[in-house]
Amino acid sequence: MNSRHGVVILGSGNVASALAPVLDSAGYIVRQVFSRNMENAATLAAKLPHAAPVDNFDSIARDAALYVVSLTDTSIPTAAEALENTGGLWVHTSGGVPASALSAASSQYGVLYPLQTFSKGREVKFSEVPLFIEGNSAETVARIKEIAERISNYVSEADSAKRLRLHAAAVFACNFVNYLWSNAEAILTAGGESLEVLYPLIKETLEKAMAISPFAAQTGPARRGDTAVTERHATVMTPRQEKLYRLLAEEITDTYLKEIPL
Amino acid sequence: MNSRHGVVILGSGNVASALAPVLDSAGYIVRQVFSRNMENAATLAAKLPHAAPVDNFDSIARDAALYVVSLTDTSIPTAAEALENTGGLWVHTSGGVPASALSAASSQYGVLYPLQTFSKGREVKFSEVPLFIEGNSAETVARIKEIAERISNYVSEADSAKRLRLHAAAVFACNFVNYLWSNAEAILTAGGESLEVLYPLIKETLEKAMAISPFAAQTGPARRGDTAVTERHATVMTPRQEKLYRLLAEEITDTYLKEIPL
Repeated sequence: MNSRHGVVILGSGNVASALAPVLDSAGYIVRQVFSRNMENAATLAAKLPHAAPVDNFDSIARDAALYVVSLTDTSIPTAAEALENTGGLWVHTSGGVPASALSAASSQYGVLYPLQTFSKGREVKFSEVPLFIEGNSAETVARIKEIAERISNYVSEADSAKRLRLHAAAVFACNFVNYLWSNAEAILTAGGESLEVLYPLIKETLEKAMAISPFAAQTGPARRGDTAVTERHATVMTPRQEKLYRLLAEEITDTYLKEIPL
Repeated sequence: MNSRHGVVILGSGNVASALAPVLDSAGYIVRQVFSRNMENAATLAAKLPHAAPVDNFDSIARDAALYVVSLTDTSIPTAAEALENTGGLWVHTSGGVPASALSAASSQYGVLYPLQTFSKGREVKFSEVPLFIEGNSAETVARIKEIAERISNYVSEADSAKRLRLHAAAVFACNFVNYLWSNAEAILTAGGESLEVLYPLIKETLEKAMAISPFAAQTGPARRGDTAVTERHATVMTPRQEKLYRLLAEEITDTYLKEIPL
């Protein structure tokens, strides 16, 4: 047990690519990066001074101190089962997967969930990323907490139920919101405009929502029940945009004018 | 014609309440505030040193130099028809209504569209609000431009077609986005959390979208085609939230994994 050392990162996606260098710089030396795709493993490993890429479970070191699993949700238990009874401390980084998905791999397992959006090539100040941790025992929580606090100033405990709620809310507030911005951009670029023209509006929408709550901040035609403009807006939208527009407008009208609770 | 003076504001909603004090401070003295609801007219008039509230079209002064119509879209032509051939310069502030909706009221009409979200009680720095203007003649455009440039540093011309596109995009980027934040907040508060926990995430989502475009910035389970998490997320959502979630997740998957254009 005392000979355990270093970190294995399982995954080479957006979260793994953001987290691995931060752990390494904090003294949690990454020895291996695993991905089913060797090229992806090699790309991330190349950014880490002591890491080798591996593309199969059999090549993964069994004596690492820490295993960080940033794979797709369905691959998390698969990896833990493939590396049954490896031991060491195991954490995954998923918002929507219970900690117990790792139980096959070790008696010490938990979660280190960063509540942030990561894209390769985009720098995020990791010290400001809220980290939500969970562990299968008080001792495991303490160990994960120690690691988390070395890389972020915002570490909280959250059990699987709370984390699932944070993640669902984040999907609305980040993924879905971003998708609506994509639609706005598509509407604008089809007319030779760019999304930048909306930046002051988007910024004020965010600041107002945070200041007075989004529920109180809601404005716009759907909030007022103005359906006439929908028909005019339809003339500048694609059928897909129009379908989404009508659904969201109807939802807003239901909420505010029919007073159906969210 | 030379005896025309001052401004009549038709409307007492969010836009009228933001715009009237700014015009007044810029020297366009507001004489009257019209609303069908006398109390609302009086509330706004009370914030303006020289304005009287009125609640019927017959009481509206016919010798004002400027009429600003910030009524609901359907009420804009109604007001212009009720005040047929009044003369003076008429502008409305709607994103979705053609300038010609005012043609009954005067031979000089146009649009002063602020691309911003306003809520009563929330201060917005008007000098930074993008204003899109339109007029029925070069002379009218020049007059509206002069007014617009006294109250904002960001004045552009936009015909009705361009303005409609800006407005449709703004509905996606502001109204609909805000509604998704309301849903995120509802999911969080049901679990005793507050929306503030998502602020770093929302802020980075916006900054990333503006830096690399929202289309390139898209992340999350739906982008990856991870449907398993949807079933787990459903356990922390209301039926309305779940319906909206499933629809948006499907739209994102269609866009990125089936490559159906927006």
